Amino acid sequence: MKGKFYGIGVGPGDPELLTLKAIRILKNIDIVISPETKKGKGSIALDIAKDYLRDDIEKLNLIFPMTYDEKVLNEKWKENAEIINLKLEEGKNIAFLTLGDPMVFSTYMYLIPPLRKQGVDIETIPGITSFCAVASTVEVPLSAGEESLCILPLRRDCENLDEVLDSFDNIVVMKPSHDNKLLGEKLIERGYGDKFVLVSKCGTSEEEVSYDIDRLKDKDVPYLSTVIIKKRGIR
Amino acid sequence: MKGKFYGIGVGPGDPELLTLKAIRILKNIDIVISPETKKGKGSIALDIAKDYLRDDIEKLNLIFPMTYDEKVLNEKWKENAEIINLKLEEGKNIAFLTLGDPMVFSTYMYLIPPLRKQGVDIETIPGITSFCAVASTVEVPLSAGEESLCILPLRRDCENLDEVLDSFDNIVVMKPSHDNKLLGEKLIERGYGDKFVLVSKCGTSEEEVSYDIDRLKDKDVPYLSTVIIKKRGIR
Repeated sequence: MKGKFYGIGVGPGDPELLTLKAIRILKNIDIVISPETKKGKGSIALDIAKDYLRDDIEKLNLIFPMTYDEKVLNEKWKENAEIINLKLEEGKNIAFLTLGDPMVFSTYMYLIPPLRKQGVDIETIPGITSFCAVASTVEVPLSAGEESLCILPLRRDCENLDEVLDSFDNIVVMKPSHDNKLLGEKLIERGYGDKFVLVSKCGTSEEEVSYDIDRLKDKDVPYLSTVIIKKRGIR
Repeated sequence: MKGKFYGIGVGPGDPELLTLKAIRILKNIDIVISPETKKGKGSIALDIAKDYLRDDIEKLNLIFPMTYDEKVLNEKWKENAEIINLKLEEGKNIAFLTLGDPMVFSTYMYLIPPLRKQGVDIETIPGITSFCAVASTVEVPLSAGEESLCILPLRRDCENLDEVLDSFDNIVVMKPSHDNKLLGEKLIERGYGDKFVLVSKCGTSEEEVSYDIDRLKDKDVPYLSTVIIKKRGIR
């Protein structure tokens, strides 16, 4: 029988934030795919899940190019989907691990269309997003009552940033390290220099929480950081 | 010793989407608080968690008025915080359960400031949000690459709706039943009549998924529904 393909959200970092459903499936897969966040740095998602994987688990290393060029990406995803499909046809069950949730800024989501085309049976298991974990850690509500919330990945060109900062009361900025200095300056310009919190490496032993605008304007904000901006005040 | 107060996100409905951390704490609390979603309808959050609670668990019924009047609310939350603090001083550990995540549209978040004032030791455990669960169920990415995402609770006055529909590529509309007919009309006006999905009672036996604009314009969309709009196309 052909195997099944799972996308599993392993949450933001703390293995205790895995769901029962994720663990049940992790224990029963034959092959795991878990892209490295940075080349040679190993996979954080795999570290989170490793205690629940079988001893004889096979690790499948696929190449996911770090580019936004859709043509390059589509070709690579198609190729990866074909490799996966061959393994599924051997009767193996495969899981693709994603940090946080599979449907929020993941590599996994791009594999779904080419896998669907090959008639693959897919199941996706949601995970705790980094921004929910960060909000709980600092006990800052992301949105209350009838307020809206914007989740904004900081683009390298910082397009959208002004518009979002002006329109929303609650903003989560993902990947602030793309230009945290500019983000800090824009918050000061608007008088929101004390209405944000920066959380880095949430749930790990290196976790750092800062309400200090000078810290946000620093050069060395880690990649795994999140900023929550609340115009009503952060505390 | 004074007890500890926990806010626990129990996820969107499926008990298998509880985290290990939520379960560890649920097993060790003395008192549970779990507001009813609608008067007399029982608590969905309590149903999700019930298998992990001790047999001798005490249920504390607090009144949380369904209003947006901040003065009324602040007074009631202060009163509820005092009741909770008295129980904590008896050495009891207390958990407040919220559907989804405690920091996204919950009643729990309002209790944090008055409890902090009383010097209560608080810990918040994040949960799977309804919108992440919905996105996984229908395998629709919430945001990819450098796209931003707006989480919009449909206000009874539908303020913001036009602006958000015009500005964002990815929109999650929470509580669409507040005026799903209007939402449907606005999608048609903009040519997005086939670029959304409506999911009701996700993860339950009554789950319903629809890509049909006529269904969205129906009168009887359930309260526990979510709409995902993706201008790039939904499938």
